[in-house]
Amino acid sequence: MLGKDDPAASSTEAAVVVRDIEPYGDHQPAVAAASPKHAELVALTLLSGTDRAALGRLMRLWTADIVALSAGRPAPGDTAPELALPGVALTTTVGFGPRVFSLPGLAGLKPGGLDDLPVMSHDRLQPAWSGGDLLLLVGADDPVSVVHAVRRLVADAAPFARPVWRQTGFWNGAGADRKPVTGRNLFGQVDGTGNPAPGTPEFDSTVWSTDGLEWFRGGTTLVVRRIRMNLDTWDELTRSEQERAVGRKLSTGAPLTGSVEHDELDLEKRDADGRLVIAENAHARLSHHSTNDGRRIFRKGLNYVQDTGATRESGLIFLSYQADIAGQFLPLLARLDAADALNEWTTTIGSAVFAIPPGFHPDEWLAQALLR
Amino acid sequence: MLGKDDPAASSTEAAVVVRDIEPYGDHQPAVAAASPKHAELVALTLLSGTDRAALGRLMRLWTADIVALSAGRPAPGDTAPELALPGVALTTTVGFGPRVFSLPGLAGLKPGGLDDLPVMSHDRLQPAWSGGDLLLLVGADDPVSVVHAVRRLVADAAPFARPVWRQTGFWNGAGADRKPVTGRNLFGQVDGTGNPAPGTPEFDSTVWSTDGLEWFRGGTTLVVRRIRMNLDTWDELTRSEQERAVGRKLSTGAPLTGSVEHDELDLEKRDADGRLVIAENAHARLSHHSTNDGRRIFRKGLNYVQDTGATRESGLIFLSYQADIAGQFLPLLARLDAADALNEWTTTIGSAVFAIPPGFHPDEWLAQALLR
Ligand code: HEM
Ligand code: HEM
Repeated sequence: MLGKDDPAASSTEAAVVVRDIEPYGDHQPAVAAASPKHAELVALTLLSGTDRAALGRLMRLWTADIVALSAGRPAPGDTAPELALPGVALTTTVGFGPRVFSLPGLAGLKPGGLDDLPVMSHDRLQPAWSGGDLLLLVGADDPVSVVHAVRRLVADAAPFARPVWRQTGFWNGAGADRKPVTGRNLFGQVDGTGNPAPGTPEFDSTVWSTDGLEWFRGGTTLVVRRIRMNLDTWDELTRSEQERAVGRKLSTGAPLTGSVEHDELDLEKRDADGRLVIAENAHARLSHHSTNDGRRIFRKGLNYVQDTGATRESGLIFLSYQADIAGQFLPLLARLDAADALNEWTTTIGSAVFAIPPGFHPDEWLAQALLR
Repeated sequence: MLGKDDPAASSTEAAVVVRDIEPYGDHQPAVAAASPKHAELVALTLLSGTDRAALGRLMRLWTADIVALSAGRPAPGDTAPELALPGVALTTTVGFGPRVFSLPGLAGLKPGGLDDLPVMSHDRLQPAWSGGDLLLLVGADDPVSVVHAVRRLVADAAPFARPVWRQTGFWNGAGADRKPVTGRNLFGQVDGTGNPAPGTPEFDSTVWSTDGLEWFRGGTTLVVRRIRMNLDTWDELTRSEQERAVGRKLSTGAPLTGSVEHDELDLEKRDADGRLVIAENAHARLSHHSTNDGRRIFRKGLNYVQDTGATRESGLIFLSYQADIAGQFLPLLARLDAADALNEWTTTIGSAVFAIPPGFHPDEWLAQALLR
């Protein structure tokens, strides 16, 4: 029988890494880091008076905010300084939408391929979740810290830009023992396996710009797609139907032709009846780099739920980093739109693209090579 | 200079307790446990065919679900079994709204004082956030686990009841070193200090029912208030104005008359000018048990943010447990409504009350003493 007040619990101690992520570097640091547990994306639209010089002032403000908030210190002028907390791996990533590059003084400096994506046949885009001139993407291990940081950054932007959409997501990249794992989306699928691994030449060539633009060296581009997932119709499938739609196992994320998560896909393998084990329209086949002229992207998912009164919508805030949207992302997107088995249960309702400027070092500020 | 791909990070290892909370006990276990990092509340309304016997069937289903999900195992019939994860301290609390006790066979079994609260002068209640016949309150250290558990529990309830509102909240009860602390609301205030401590006689007499009803022994009642907090006008105050509104310091949560968080309030103390240090209308004075004929409640806050397009609302999902709503909570609420300094920045937009049945032991099911 249990004690009266102290709920009985079976506990084990696990060592977790409590850390702050340095805000400095050749690249904005969150891009290559693991998905945060909590994140918020805010897209802002420039106010009419915000010119190139004003944008530079905002970047200097944000740089100071980011340096403080990343270390768990209050931002300058913080009205709730006690909500700043170290050790929560808080990161802030800043991006510029295509329209920024039509400001006087910035013509010709737009990264190649940075244009709003054409509407796909399965898209049902809502303006409320699309577009934006500036992006703030704040991630951390703790939601209070995310909310606090976003509040500061948005407040400091008020003279220059105002929010047009906000998206909040979460991800669990830890197993029961708190060791890092790939994480799962709300269909229950292991999601992220096929990604190039940070630190490899493959990752570098996939993500960082080698575009001719001097200012953009070390930058990347980000596609944000808000993708609704129909859990109800998905749940009506058998597990093997669910697995066939992707070509991977639900239990481990292994290819249907393999046994552990990181086994290579065998795209030629056929079963006893001569049918391809990884189906023609399986998501993992159609998106695989070997079937896309070697084109790769670096995906970071965030699960979301959105409640409207009593009804809940579930989905994925799909984030894709690549050096060049037009060259890497768009052909893949079009191919999936045409044939992907998953299209039956997924609908993209928001879309936006951003240039992610390179990182800054101490005594530098964000995008200063563009705006100085 | 930093490496190219591996974001530099200052890391320390901290031992965190990874645990499952036993679902069994004399009381539903989450009531006395610390606030979860993530929680979702779902209120459901009974379908017209749901009578006493059907409610009993639902409670047997939910009991089996709760036992499995608390241990990190898939619930029976789980369609996304891989999303069940041990070690995330998942708890589920179930409650019954007042209307349940008007079902044939349950007359006379309603806990004393369990009635919808009268509307306060500062309330701006929205039906969308109010009322409900059944409550599910799921909490865990991981948001994916919460979403998954709620999905199972709501799916199993479909033949009996349908959701009418859902609220999602978060709380950070850990400091930078991951040791437990009281936690802060979005005004930045330490919130929860004055609570009776679980395990003390004060806690027991505050929370657990000693109502005459046999079935309800070991139960409690829960008031859910959705309280909007106006961060913009709050931020216009000076820090000392903010502190005066509550009568406690923002830095530590200590009373303005003391130096550390748990110092007793000195409600008589005056400053050099003869003014009360803890003002007449300070929230901590008006809510203090010594000024309320000894009446206490046990509060559990959850911060929330709610986005409507580009605008964000912030607030507190205020949860109060007490043996008797009419006897303990209502007089306090009315007193605060009449005079609380905080009323200027807070507005209650949702309100609901639930009886929280006692806990169950192995081989028992939830509320079986009521429904068997
Ligand atoms: C809600 C929508 C989506 C879901 C649920 C989903 C799910 C998955 C899953 C389960 C995998 C296999 C494991 C892995 O490698 O991560 C995968 C792989 C992949 N997906 Fe998606 N995906 C979605 C949308 C997209 C979109 C919109 C794109 C790009 C336009 C995309 C591109 C890829 C790529 C490139 C791979 C890796 C293929 C490889 O090289 O092995 N996915 N996705
Ligand atoms: C958004 C609204 C509210 C905010 C921001 C808020 C904030 C606070 C803060 C900062 C404290 C002092 C620290 C502590 O003891 O926890 C406190 C204490 C307290 N509050 Fe609230 N509160 C709110 C609403 C309410 C409501 C609606 C009630 C009850 C009707 C209530 C009852 C209490 C009680 C009983 C105490 C402890 C007093 C003591 O014995 O020391 N509060 N609250």
